Amino acid sequence: MVQEVASERIAPARMLERKREILLAASRVFRRQGLQATGMRDIAAELGMAVGNLYYYFRDKDELLAFCQQDALGGLLGLARAVRALPAPADQRLYLLVVGHLICLHEQTPGALAHLEVETLSGAWREAVIEGRAEYEEHFRALLREGQAAGRLRPLDDKVTARAMLGALNWTVKWFRPRDETSTTALGQQLAELLLRGVLAPGVELGAPDLALLPDLLAPEEPP
Amino acid sequence: MVQEVASERIAPARMLERKREILLAASRVFRRQGLQATGMRDIAAELGMAVGNLYYYFRDKDELLAFCQQDALGGLLGLARAVRALPAPADQRLYLLVVGHLICLHEQTPGALAHLEVETLSGAWREAVIEGRAEYEEHFRALLREGQAAGRLRPLDDKVTARAMLGALNWTVKWFRPRDETSTTALGQQLAELLLRGVLAPGVELGAPDLALLPDLLAPEEPP
Repeated sequence: MVQEVASERIAPARMLERKREILLAASRVFRRQGLQATGMRDIAAELGMAVGNLYYYFRDKDELLAFCQQDALGGLLGLARAVRALPAPADQRLYLLVVGHLICLHEQTPGALAHLEVETLSGAWREAVIEGRAEYEEHFRALLREGQAAGRLRPLDDKVTARAMLGALNWTVKWFRPRDETSTTALGQQLAELLLRGVLAPGVELGAPDLALLPDLLAPEEPP
Repeated sequence: MVQEVASERIAPARMLERKREILLAASRVFRRQGLQATGMRDIAAELGMAVGNLYYYFRDKDELLAFCQQDALGGLLGLARAVRALPAPADQRLYLLVVGHLICLHEQTPGALAHLEVETLSGAWREAVIEGRAEYEEHFRALLREGQAAGRLRPLDDKVTARAMLGALNWTVKWFRPRDETSTTALGQQLAELLLRGVLAPGVELGAPDLALLPDLLAPEEPP
């Protein structure tokens, strides 16, 4: 079975699609038995795939986890750059970023549980992910600073506030089981309302942005 | 060395103190190399202790992690019960609970990183921890409901809001390195302000509670 697959030429777009299918199955196993206790054999079994076949897509669990994090991070960074460029008040852009973050995490990149586990990655993978996360956090911090400069947000520590927001968002991976994109968007709106009301300057009204913008904001910058 | 210790009789209070010292050392190793990659040998080395000696306090890493979670959870539950009983508006009690949660996590129970890793616990330990966590979450939810009933909080989903708050609080374990209790309290105040402003009903002013109450609220219900 290994040879059969290895001798095929798989187009990059198809390869990416297959990898995401594998993550989807892996995420089911992670949730059932924890990230640590899950081996490549368990993931292959979940897929009804020979383990040798799975190794064609991912050399080991480390590579699978790294792909999961890079895939999620790539989506989040694309979203953040698109949101930053919108001609809207900083608080409305933050609102979109919060809802979009949840859609990325729960709808676009399966295996989101791994998103929390940077510590489990080995050296080289780990550095790239830490760098990407710092860049992503900086988008939150910049929006918080822009909102303060424009008088729409109260005086606050942008680093602490960005990390508190990311904590509330990322922790959903531990407890939220999305039924569909609508349920994820509804959760995103609740979290956005909590977090945005928490930072608005006195007298500023929370204006919900146009969520119909999200599909475009979430589209990958370059098609795979 | 093992025999020497095993033949001593250690008083329960001293045993607890020693276990916490071990957790403090373990937490340094967890932060350096991750929870997963850390073995009992690494923890013993950090303590300059023979590994056999360490086994006297904890049979294995599972037991050490379970103790860490139970110790943290015991502190959190004691705090929540004491806060609930205070004669103060729900939003002020929530404020105290938020600041107290961070002090519990960062000052009272070392090795707080393990607090996030319920999945790594094996069966029996895991169930007790999950039960304790549900009880703790219910204290947050009850305060959110009481605050709404009193008109001090806006209409909200108490389950989603409690979990978002706990996410923001627990995530600090990933990035906050406390210098001392003052820095932890200051962080708690920033998070309390973010989260409480996020739930206040329109027109209700955020009233900071008397933080001098915290040491009593955080005292263990019965001395060990």
